[in-house]
Amino acid sequence: MLKMSQNAFKTTKTQVSSADNLSTKYLLQGWYIRQELAWVFNYLPLGLKVLNNIKSIITKHLETLWAQEILMSSLGAKEKWEKTGRSGIDILFKVPTSESNNNYNFLNPTHEEIVTPLMSEFIKSYKDLPMAVFQTQTKFRNEKRAKSGILRWREFLMNDMYSFHTDQESLDEMYSKVIEVYKNIFRDLGIGNDTYLTYASGGAFSKYSHEFQTLTSLGEDIIHVDKDNKIALNNEIIEDPSVKEEFKENQFVEEKWSEVWNIFKLWTKFTDACDVNYVDKNWKKRRVYMWCYGIWVSRTMGIVAEKFLDEKWLIWPENIAPYDYYVIRIWDERIDEEAKKVIEKLENIGKTVIYDDRNIGFWQKAKDADLLGIPKRIIISEKTLAQGGIEYKSRNNDIYEILSIDNINNIK
Amino acid sequence: MLKMSQNAFKTTKTQVSSADNLSTKYLLQGWYIRQELAWVFNYLPLGLKVLNNIKSIITKHLETLWAQEILMSSLGAKEKWEKTGRSGIDILFKVPTSESNNNYNFLNPTHEEIVTPLMSEFIKSYKDLPMAVFQTQTKFRNEKRAKSGILRWREFLMNDMYSFHTDQESLDEMYSKVIEVYKNIFRDLGIGNDTYLTYASGGAFSKYSHEFQTLTSLGEDIIHVDKDNKIALNNEIIEDPSVKEEFKENQFVEEKWSEVWNIFKLWTKFTDACDVNYVDKNWKKRRVYMWCYGIWVSRTMGIVAEKFLDEKWLIWPENIAPYDYYVIRIWDERIDEEAKKVIEKLENIGKTVIYDDRNIGFWQKAKDADLLGIPKRIIISEKTLAQGGIEYKSRNNDIYEILSIDNINNIK
Repeated sequence: MLKMSQNAFKTTKTQVSSADNLSTKYLLQGWYIRQELAWVFNYLPLGLKVLNNIKSIITKHLETLWAQEILMSSLGAKEKWEKTGRSGIDILFKVPTSESNNNYNFLNPTHEEIVTPLMSEFIKSYKDLPMAVFQTQTKFRNEKRAKSGILRWREFLMNDMYSFHTDQESLDEMYSKVIEVYKNIFRDLGIGNDTYLTYASGGAFSKYSHEFQTLTSLGEDIIHVDKDNKIALNNEIIEDPSVKEEFKENQFVEEKWSEVWNIFKLWTKFTDACDVNYVDKNWKKRRVYMWCYGIWVSRTMGIVAEKFLDEKWLIWPENIAPYDYYVIRIWDERIDEEAKKVIEKLENIGKTVIYDDRNIGFWQKAKDADLLGIPKRIIISEKTLAQGGIEYKSRNNDIYEILSIDNINNIK
Repeated sequence: MLKMSQNAFKTTKTQVSSADNLSTKYLLQGWYIRQELAWVFNYLPLGLKVLNNIKSIITKHLETLWAQEILMSSLGAKEKWEKTGRSGIDILFKVPTSESNNNYNFLNPTHEEIVTPLMSEFIKSYKDLPMAVFQTQTKFRNEKRAKSGILRWREFLMNDMYSFHTDQESLDEMYSKVIEVYKNIFRDLGIGNDTYLTYASGGAFSKYSHEFQTLTSLGEDIIHVDKDNKIALNNEIIEDPSVKEEFKENQFVEEKWSEVWNIFKLWTKFTDACDVNYVDKNWKKRRVYMWCYGIWVSRTMGIVAEKFLDEKWLIWPENIAPYDYYVIRIWDERIDEEAKKVIEKLENIGKTVIYDDRNIGFWQKAKDADLLGIPKRIIISEKTLAQGGIEYKSRNNDIYEILSIDNINNIK
């Protein structure tokens, strides 16, 4: 239980930001995030809880793939980036090692350069494959033109997974499994119905690549969506003759969506550069195949916030809400004892609670409950007790119910 | 359950490091850590699990203080460090913002410069105080002379807490509570008996400062220890006349210990620089007082590893071990079914298990169980089944017991 009377963090009365999207404004108006530098944010207690919930959901599902969690460093050697030919990309932050010479390292914006040589120590035989590692880690990208507040930050959390394979067939098998696992993740995040696997251009490595896009007013990408068949095409491939042919039966609508996940078929790009091989059943040396997959964790917070907000501010899906219940005590300390009984019951069934026991007006408390987007609100007062218990309301509707305290455990 | 047959990570046959301490050698020989740059490490699956366990223990106890968890950014504005007069300290890594000008930010080595202005937005009245925030976050320090492998890294995890107060009395009250909470943390980490509150020199802010030091062969600090009275003095104050007088009855032994925690009585150093005030009960504006407290999380992994290792490698205390059990199947697949029954029983009571089902020699499996330091080992074979069940052995003794599979739940 977090008691508001002992909590220094407060909502602000007015919007403190000129951000171009509502979710960032509301996350700033509540005590979720604060800007530190341009496109660099600190997470206040509520924001960190949302991030941790997103991270837990992702981790739980990735572990069903036998993928193992690791944590790679943020500082990366310049030589590793030179080896793969990417030391010149403009999003790399340089970190000079001393004043007196021109040596520097990079802040890793992604970890292919680190994970490939790291895993090459362990991958020796076909028996070691397939294998996958993932991490949830702070990434640094010196984006020149960061857009839409929460969507492209210079320092952000990403979940990146890397899988290693003997051949194309093993890659494809992993790919099918990952798609299913990611669908489960998006379902648990509360965005499953509006998040589609989307065909995009494949870049250097293959005809198409894949990404998961979700419908949001923050959308950066124009996506052609066939909602009946749950198929989506990125705008960049829509004019391709073979795409036109393949999807000629489908009816597409143009909408702005946001990328929440992407997959890069790296094939042997990095294992070539780092000379990573395995020995097959016939003792023949072969090149390891590799894929990488990324979910934008910080961005997911913004996308989910934007997706569900209403004219009364934030609304969190239950699985990622920072707290389950916002319990408002109306007025005097006599109510305190009954309120604590209610909270104890909720905590005994594993629910988390903000207890608003402040000596301030009811409307300020109710406004905070709405602004912060806590899924379930309970009011307890002399009046509700006289009516038989507490007043219950869900954040995403306007149905008010009086429930007896004994029935609290049965709230759906 | 982690099945070793599906795990690419392996121990190395020989020591791969010239580190000056055994724990770093063993952490490298097992699949705990790998060096990325000088004094910058990647955490492999077992190392990350140990780190996360340490982090969970710390977080659980700090929450009993009503402290709230936040996550501040790694990139920090140069101007904030200039404001407090610390922009010239030599451990600061600079991060240029572009090629074309001399602007840069810093990688924060500690977060007073960030947390003080951050909290000044929320601390307005005496009613907002005391309050405390903490984080477990990656710190970057450009240490010129990093010593003892795991002890002083350039990129490492630290738990740093910052508390804000109306006055000296409130500071002192918090201090007493924190000392008790930290003792509980060190107890749960398994180092409670050998971790003492130690008096050190106070620097600019007070006569003495305090740190927790723990006994280890990696010790960097000479500590004068009175084990009967559980009092310790840092070497730097031992010649002070008032110290000599105060502790004249105590019998001290000189030993090398390692700092795991320190506390800095910042008083108003940072709140002066950032002009952080509150309004007292009489509507008078007053300066906020501030303390900070830090536990070295990565370092704690090294210290605990060093403290408990034996001639057969690592031994983890149960609370922070990466897995609880190492289950070895001897030979054929017929045993597999019985082994899985055992593992299911263990998992049903919340235990975590490495299942060594590899088709390799027994001695290699037993060696891995010992090297990795997993607290409890179970062997299951035709022979143990014939004797009545499984063979159980704890990592920290040489008592072998045959237990029936039904009795597994009763292992102490």
